Amino acid sequence: MGRTMTEQAMRFRLRIAYDGTRYAGWQVQPGRETIQGVLEDAVAEITGEQQRVHCSGRTDAGVHARGQVAHVDIGTKQLAARKFARSLNGVLPDDIRIMAAARAAPDFHARFDAVQKEYRYFVWNGPTIYPDVRLYRFHERCKLDVDAMCASAEILQGEHDFAAFAANPNREIDGTVRRVDDVVVRKKGHELCMMVRGEGFLYKMVRSIAGYLLRVGRGEVTAADTSVILASKVRTARVPTAPAHGLFLWRVVYRPSGHADS
Amino acid sequence: MGRTMTEQAMRFRLRIAYDGTRYAGWQVQPGRETIQGVLEDAVAEITGEQQRVHCSGRTDAGVHARGQVAHVDIGTKQLAARKFARSLNGVLPDDIRIMAAARAAPDFHARFDAVQKEYRYFVWNGPTIYPDVRLYRFHERCKLDVDAMCASAEILQGEHDFAAFAANPNREIDGTVRRVDDVVVRKKGHELCMMVRGEGFLYKMVRSIAGYLLRVGRGEVTAADTSVILASKVRTARVPTAPAHGLFLWRVVYRPSGHADS
Repeated sequence: MGRTMTEQAMRFRLRIAYDGTRYAGWQVQPGRETIQGVLEDAVAEITGEQQRVHCSGRTDAGVHARGQVAHVDIGTKQLAARKFARSLNGVLPDDIRIMAAARAAPDFHARFDAVQKEYRYFVWNGPTIYPDVRLYRFHERCKLDVDAMCASAEILQGEHDFAAFAANPNREIDGTVRRVDDVVVRKKGHELCMMVRGEGFLYKMVRSIAGYLLRVGRGEVTAADTSVILASKVRTARVPTAPAHGLFLWRVVYRPSGHADS
Repeated sequence: MGRTMTEQAMRFRLRIAYDGTRYAGWQVQPGRETIQGVLEDAVAEITGEQQRVHCSGRTDAGVHARGQVAHVDIGTKQLAARKFARSLNGVLPDDIRIMAAARAAPDFHARFDAVQKEYRYFVWNGPTIYPDVRLYRFHERCKLDVDAMCASAEILQGEHDFAAFAANPNREIDGTVRRVDDVVVRKKGHELCMMVRGEGFLYKMVRSIAGYLLRVGRGEVTAADTSVILASKVRTARVPTAPAHGLFLWRVVYRPSGHADS
């Protein structure tokens, strides 16, 4: 029996970092610069193949990544993973980098096989922001109450109906219940970081959590309001979406498969 | 006796941070965007006065600052220091920020009164650089020998004739002997920082020290060569100038004067 095209194809897993400043997000859109579009053009330039690059989760316009993961199939050209990464970096703009590439099992899926995603939201909390971090930190002048933020963060951990923290709760086809493994707030000097880990998130949920925790930090709502807002299951102006440029997709965790990043 | 214009003028001391990426350095040049030019335009916009802004030391094209210090006189307009800083930040582009402003003694001079300057040169030492730090870190792929760099750094400390580390040793009107208080190399993960402190430096001396220490780290020269090169007092290709975008003017120290930054 002849081998089919699919059997011959090699699947690669890529770890990708990007500066989202000038992009209209991950997903290909006609007439806009997108991370996916630029990556697919780079793959085509190297392999001559127009292949889809599938990511673990689409990031919005302006969101950055240090550890986005994607997979892509290469049908005909034989390529070593390291060579593939180097070649891609040779043609990609310097605001998108392949940090690692590895051969993956033919059924590996960057989105469906992810067991946990980690996002980090960075804040510069001081009167004036240093220009060299302005594109990667949200600037909050008001002194934040970190203890109140931590107390609120703890309430958000666990499995909840996060409808109040979704941009469009009615459009979530898998419902609005999610399990959030960790919400951790840390501050060192003027640098504050909110780390959120979970299996999956509703649309704009991480930025909604960040926007809400910033309100708690400013004293506009109390940590005790958090349970009430969660229980309301209604998205209102009480939960703002924090700006995109403070957010990084930091890491995506998969089940151990023996296909380590090279 | 009438008070002269000079006596009425208020002198301000400014602490300034900038992202040097798009600037042709500090010093005003016709037809080029410079930090000084943009600052002087901002002062003029707020006060109506065309005043010179004097810095502690000019930075080259592409060099960044977190703690540049400058002074400027305002002749007629009465201004509180905090208000002045806020107004300047209101008209400055977001890649230049006034971090602090204070009234200074009429004879305070940002350049002549500085007793120490601290520069930091940042390196990303790993195979691939994260895009969000690419504009503020020199990317060195070769694994650096930090112990050798530290050994060489120690030899550079103290008072020496640094002619071999000057861009144009023959054009240094005050000679080429300088006292370097500290040269410290630190690495944490992929981040390496070279910190250099001293009263004053020759033209491009800090980037020459950084470029030389990188060569030591790569094993192209040994730490033991450092004394020989210093003693040669001749600038040759053995001492390269490290690229501008890794360098930050970090801090300028003055004698205590009672005029603390506000």
